Amino acid sequence: MPDTSGRAPYDPKTTRLLSFHDAVPRFADGSDSPRAYLERCLATIEAREPLVRAFATLNIESARKVADASSARYKAGRPLSVVDGMPFGIKDLYETFDMPTQMNSPYYMGWQGPRDSAHAYVMRKGGASILGKTTTTEFGSSAPPPTRNPFDARRTAGGSSSGTSAAIGAMMLPAASGSQVRGSILRPAGYSANFALKPSFGALNRGGGHSISPSQSVLGIHAGSLEDCWNTAFYIAATAGGDPGQPGLFGEPAIGAARKIGRVIRLDTLGWDETTAQTREAFERFAADLARIGVGVISRRDDPAIETFEKALRTIPDFLFPILGYEGRWPLADYEERRPGTLSAAMLEAHKRGLTVTVEQYRAHLKTRAAIRAQFEALRGKADAFVLLCQQDPAPIGMGIGNPVYGDVSSTLGCPAFALPLLAVEGMPVGVQLMGWPHDDYALACMAKWLMPALLAPR
Amino acid sequence: MPDTSGRAPYDPKTTRLLSFHDAVPRFADGSDSPRAYLERCLATIEAREPLVRAFATLNIESARKVADASSARYKAGRPLSVVDGMPFGIKDLYETFDMPTQMNSPYYMGWQGPRDSAHAYVMRKGGASILGKTTTTEFGSSAPPPTRNPFDARRTAGGSSSGTSAAIGAMMLPAASGSQVRGSILRPAGYSANFALKPSFGALNRGGGHSISPSQSVLGIHAGSLEDCWNTAFYIAATAGGDPGQPGLFGEPAIGAARKIGRVIRLDTLGWDETTAQTREAFERFAADLARIGVGVISRRDDPAIETFEKALRTIPDFLFPILGYEGRWPLADYEERRPGTLSAAMLEAHKRGLTVTVEQYRAHLKTRAAIRAQFEALRGKADAFVLLCQQDPAPIGMGIGNPVYGDVSSTLGCPAFALPLLAVEGMPVGVQLMGWPHDDYALACMAKWLMPALLAPR
Repeated sequence: MPDTSGRAPYDPKTTRLLSFHDAVPRFADGSDSPRAYLERCLATIEAREPLVRAFATLNIESARKVADASSARYKAGRPLSVVDGMPFGIKDLYETFDMPTQMNSPYYMGWQGPRDSAHAYVMRKGGASILGKTTTTEFGSSAPPPTRNPFDARRTAGGSSSGTSAAIGAMMLPAASGSQVRGSILRPAGYSANFALKPSFGALNRGGGHSISPSQSVLGIHAGSLEDCWNTAFYIAATAGGDPGQPGLFGEPAIGAARKIGRVIRLDTLGWDETTAQTREAFERFAADLARIGVGVISRRDDPAIETFEKALRTIPDFLFPILGYEGRWPLADYEERRPGTLSAAMLEAHKRGLTVTVEQYRAHLKTRAAIRAQFEALRGKADAFVLLCQQDPAPIGMGIGNPVYGDVSSTLGCPAFALPLLAVEGMPVGVQLMGWPHDDYALACMAKWLMPALLAPR
Repeated sequence: MPDTSGRAPYDPKTTRLLSFHDAVPRFADGSDSPRAYLERCLATIEAREPLVRAFATLNIESARKVADASSARYKAGRPLSVVDGMPFGIKDLYETFDMPTQMNSPYYMGWQGPRDSAHAYVMRKGGASILGKTTTTEFGSSAPPPTRNPFDARRTAGGSSSGTSAAIGAMMLPAASGSQVRGSILRPAGYSANFALKPSFGALNRGGGHSISPSQSVLGIHAGSLEDCWNTAFYIAATAGGDPGQPGLFGEPAIGAARKIGRVIRLDTLGWDETTAQTREAFERFAADLARIGVGVISRRDDPAIETFEKALRTIPDFLFPILGYEGRWPLADYEERRPGTLSAAMLEAHKRGLTVTVEQYRAHLKTRAAIRAQFEALRGKADAFVLLCQQDPAPIGMGIGNPVYGDVSSTLGCPAFALPLLAVEGMPVGVQLMGWPHDDYALACMAKWLMPALLAPR
């Protein structure tokens, strides 16, 4: 697809999105302030939002007040937290007491809950400026919002974390929340050159959020820098906890020493089948670069256990879709029966398929998923982490939201994965996943800290 | 405490509360109808609600319309389900699209959500008449509603399923929903002679409900008869499923053959320490009666493994309270900070203690809970079920809501327990728990079907 957008091609070696972390030292010496930082974000929003359309709601005056209070705290040398003064966006599947939560559904148009979701509450508590609600697909699933890709407005920003990833790619925000049932964090992050953490299942409190497949979904963080991505996720986990009954996010408040990666397992998964030649080539170059910087890369071709695991991963759709359909029956049936026409045609069709799943089938699917997780655990010791693509191609042109298939793996395994903006194809961003074992999120962050400069430094 | 209420003393051998199940055959032959059944409930409500105060909201006209439609279906020989035409109450922690959900909190006074909770939706779908929202304590925890015990209005109806248990005890309803974090199903059921099922953890879909300790809470069913209790619970599970990621409720749509109990383990738990002499005597007579009808009764005095388990159960408060406090931080902090004075003094104090629990402590408590569950599983094979009291005493006089301690056991173990109206003390109802292993809910129902007539038949 020739690029007729007239833009400069994206280059992961030179593109740097917003970092809040890097600005903080200047808040203390007075050469910058959270209010000034916010105003720069607002100027970008003013310039780019008419085309990008990343926000379902903006709350600019509130954000300014919060930023002023934060500026005063830094001046007094008493910031509240690592996110004090950070302009932040809340994905519009999560409730906010001062803005509607609309989920890109006519059923919720204008609806406003009486409370903050857990992560919105603690971000405010830590002094962050909640600037707006970022767009999402219908209930995090099908019908897309009008959001466009910040690197090429002819293209999608993906979904369901559409607005979050676009706002960060457009440098409107340093960080925002995302969530994922299949690939709704990792894929849009890859489309718009975000860093993102899809954490271990249950690591960040989903309270006050709306998911149509709670056993497969997770709250995550997108950011313009690796530091903001980790620091924000950890701050939320440390103050709001993880999901009830889950141990939350393990690690340290800030990424410590960079950790050299000894060996990774390279995964194809079902995603590879439909990955385009150009994107495959980019990933092959990435694998060669890993070898160049001293990382061992093994794959299905090197180890029968990995080949067996790859085969198991190919069965994911057999249980992921029925689980999704079964768990989504309520509340979707409630909405659609009360107000027929609430659901988009695609979502209605998927919902109707979900209604055919029996409880016996659902139980069997949960067991299959548990068995694949056990198979995954058995690979521990073979490598430090896994690498796979975030996406099959650069963000597609048009209104489709792209294929989430590469995200299915970590959603199914309940394991953490970082989206890292490492590749470019057709002058557009393509992300790589650094995926690890459940609750090893922090080790992955330290490995990502080592990997990024090692790969992107000029040779 | 002498009884000055002037009422007739409660006798489990003669008292029968409402049964919907028994009325259904008459709907078909036209000698009764769901509308007529509802009108009898409404007449009782009119007579008794001014004193009992079981409802936070009533929706009588809607219930009548639904009952009329149901009456027509039975006449045509086409009822929708086993709950078609059943007058039903929804505990006011669960959302209903047509009535406020107020949780006995000033924060939610008048608040109405846009949707039905999962169980409200499927009960409507099955043709039940949702007659009202039953009162609860503040967020299911502390400050009581004005609800009084239907057997003696000087006494409490318990909590947090206050309105549900009182409405059933007063014969205003044949069934209603309850929920439990500690003893909020089992204790009020015992106070008001309800049958109730506190099911296996996750067996009934909690979607659209509000819990301040989701890893310890469960949705359950209270009813005037064992059949309505089981049939309704199973209908909800079969149509709404269990909690996402959980296998739901196992068993059959209706209780089959009564199952003779061979042997039970009698548990003291911490509850016994403060159980009054009269109530202890009643339980001793119950144990003797079990022996009389051929049930083996073993206890800590017979088996060192049971003694070890009893000792472990005494440690429950060491982790139950910190888990509760940790999980409740959000949303309680959000409410209290936004609107100071939202929480009652007792709840605010408990919430403040919760704020001191660290994530490391929370993780350790989850592990301790898991270890006790493993210890529990190791007792399988020693008996068919467990028996213990629902309460330490008849419902206390005054505005206190009684002690939930006997409910902590099944909440902690994630196992099912039926409250069975088997005993009387001071002329007031006292319930017995028939408790079993996780997912053996149906076996318990069949054992309860055998036990009730075996114990209550005239000798």
